[in-house]
Amino acid sequence: MDAIKKHFNASLIKKIASKFGTPIFVYSEKIILDSIKSYKTAFSKTDILFCYALKANSNNSLCSILAKKGIGADIVSGGELFRALKAGFEPQKIVFSGVGKTEEELNYALKSNVLMINVESFDELEILKKVASKFKKIANFSIRINPDIDPHTHKFITTGKLGGKFGVSLKEAFRMYEYSKKFKFLNPIGMQVHLGSQIYSVKPYVMAIDLILAAIKKLSERGINIKYIDIGGGWGVDEIRGMRPPAILAKAINSKIKHLSGIKLIIEPGRSLMASAGILITKVLYKKKSGDKNFIIVNGAMNDFIRPALYGAKHPVYSFSRNKKKLKADIVGPVCESGDFLAKDIELPLPENGDLLAIGSVGAYGQSMSSQYNSRLRAPEILLKGKSEYKLIRKRESFRDLIYKEVRLP
Amino acid sequence: MDAIKKHFNASLIKKIASKFGTPIFVYSEKIILDSIKSYKTAFSKTDILFCYALKANSNNSLCSILAKKGIGADIVSGGELFRALKAGFEPQKIVFSGVGKTEEELNYALKSNVLMINVESFDELEILKKVASKFKKIANFSIRINPDIDPHTHKFITTGKLGGKFGVSLKEAFRMYEYSKKFKFLNPIGMQVHLGSQIYSVKPYVMAIDLILAAIKKLSERGINIKYIDIGGGWGVDEIRGMRPPAILAKAINSKIKHLSGIKLIIEPGRSLMASAGILITKVLYKKKSGDKNFIIVNGAMNDFIRPALYGAKHPVYSFSRNKKKLKADIVGPVCESGDFLAKDIELPLPENGDLLAIGSVGAYGQSMSSQYNSRLRAPEILLKGKSEYKLIRKRESFRDLIYKEVRLP
Repeated sequence: MDAIKKHFNASLIKKIASKFGTPIFVYSEKIILDSIKSYKTAFSKTDILFCYALKANSNNSLCSILAKKGIGADIVSGGELFRALKAGFEPQKIVFSGVGKTEEELNYALKSNVLMINVESFDELEILKKVASKFKKIANFSIRINPDIDPHTHKFITTGKLGGKFGVSLKEAFRMYEYSKKFKFLNPIGMQVHLGSQIYSVKPYVMAIDLILAAIKKLSERGINIKYIDIGGGWGVDEIRGMRPPAILAKAINSKIKHLSGIKLIIEPGRSLMASAGILITKVLYKKKSGDKNFIIVNGAMNDFIRPALYGAKHPVYSFSRNKKKLKADIVGPVCESGDFLAKDIELPLPENGDLLAIGSVGAYGQSMSSQYNSRLRAPEILLKGKSEYKLIRKRESFRDLIYKEVRLP
Repeated sequence: MDAIKKHFNASLIKKIASKFGTPIFVYSEKIILDSIKSYKTAFSKTDILFCYALKANSNNSLCSILAKKGIGADIVSGGELFRALKAGFEPQKIVFSGVGKTEEELNYALKSNVLMINVESFDELEILKKVASKFKKIANFSIRINPDIDPHTHKFITTGKLGGKFGVSLKEAFRMYEYSKKFKFLNPIGMQVHLGSQIYSVKPYVMAIDLILAAIKKLSERGINIKYIDIGGGWGVDEIRGMRPPAILAKAINSKIKHLSGIKLIIEPGRSLMASAGILITKVLYKKKSGDKNFIIVNGAMNDFIRPALYGAKHPVYSFSRNKKKLKADIVGPVCESGDFLAKDIELPLPENGDLLAIGSVGAYGQSMSSQYNSRLRAPEILLKGKSEYKLIRKRESFRDLIYKEVRLP
């Protein structure tokens, strides 16, 4: 709440809402720059490449803030590669992950000279070999290891457990590295793990690094030299208080890798760079009571921000009302299902219809997961620069945008 | 499965997949026409208006099949009104529902001469009065009653329980009807209930009708004449076997209302008209094993079809492979989260990489809930007409479509 109050000036927010309408995403450049800085400071003594996980928020203007600061990109689709290049990320700082890359995507990545392709199955290695051979292009690759570590997060965002779809076992990875030796277009340079999202402890990272260090030692004995250790992302964000200092993470990691030379660390922050930087401004439409429950109906909905419905995520709600009278209510949207809520059972100053509410910590996995469900128009995005400057960085959709890919039959 | 095999000819599906690529939604016009027919036959003796719930699937070409057959529309947003009018639904067959209609949307609906606006709170009635008075336009309206009936479905799609955001109590409705008498631009003509989705029993409908009949009798004694009884939608679909005969529903309802005259019944089928008509064709990219679990990685994902992740919905998977060898596996997509699955623990003929799989019963709440998450391009849609004719009714998105609303900062 305090973070919202501090970084998003109430009168400026009202001005933006009245000029561009609501719902609308508003991001603070200052918060993004601060987050970059705290990562850089924390890891100042580490040979490191930060690869921003574009899936968190791939808006061109936000991505280019990161690219200009020398950050790289963690991408998971051809669309994200397209966006990363448009935003100015250097190809040699782009890592391509994901369990289901197509031939076309692998080809696009090779042609774009990305740093490495993070292979997640033997089948994929075969296809990578095929594509690389066809285009006579050396494919630098890493392998994503499934370390079988449980980071104790939501089951949907746990990604490093056996029995999940991500990565391969260490044994399988060794088979793949060995196999790749036979083909001149396959060049193994990295090893990756990704444990999940919203991780609040350094312990799983330390365990994963121990596992990787032991593995690359063995690989080096077999003539395979791993130059990149990629420990993925997943460093959690405190949705109420904002970014959690990466210094804690850095300290734990550095103690493990400081003695290594010729090895570069890659980490892939997404949420931790972007979540706290964004708020979703919505307008109160109606208030009503059903049974014992109060509802505040706002014009933002699950199509704009699906995390509460999909993951049961709890995000702070900041009211711009100064009413001393309080109300305990659910904040719900106009979409026709009970799953359409933005917050449940929260207490806030009783708003008037027309008042603004801000949902906090939506800079990551907000707009990037939005849809047109219920034929709602996807919300625009604004970037705050400095104290009073703001820029429209994504326009609101129009009715026309709902149907512009449709073909009307005669 | 049999329904997929019967209505979607394997060689035609392969042809479409190779011509337009995958993932791709394919709909059968025949199934839609059959569904319309079974509703019409079941209710042939009832004075009834069918209002198709556009939120299920609002593609222009699919909607116009329904509009041409005299079906009306149940809409929940300005965007849906725009789409309904484009598809040719008669305004006097359009009902506008939803808890969060804006002034602009109410104004648009009045100007479009929709049949009625289904009001869901006292606050909304006030705004409707304001808009109607301002434009000197009579607002025909119904009130959505919350009957406090539990239809025993998923908590997100239960919509007629007290403590939920939908509708108002009967007591509140009476207050609203009475209140409206004072204003010449407010004209009460209907009463609505909507119980939820995926309802498998007629009992909640019968209970709701009893409640409405008692209420409109009382209202008539107070000089308020209700002409439309709207019992909403929610008639469940068997995802494996397809549409459940509406005759069962019709029989139960008719026994209650056959003696009434001057009253028109409205029902709002969405899923039951459209779900079984659609399949999602995906291509097998890779197979892998993690722990004891097999994964088939396909190129369709949760951004294309979110029901398994969001509601835990179980949809049938049909394999076009004829392999005698079977595999028990999860069908997962390329999106980077564990929640990205299309089916879990299903047994199917072991597919080769490159083979096609069809996810069944995706005609409703499939494309309409899709997003560009992970910068994936939203899938195209194809309509099958007759045995071998097919039409592209929505084009696949391009990379350009990911960013065309974005504004690049200098």
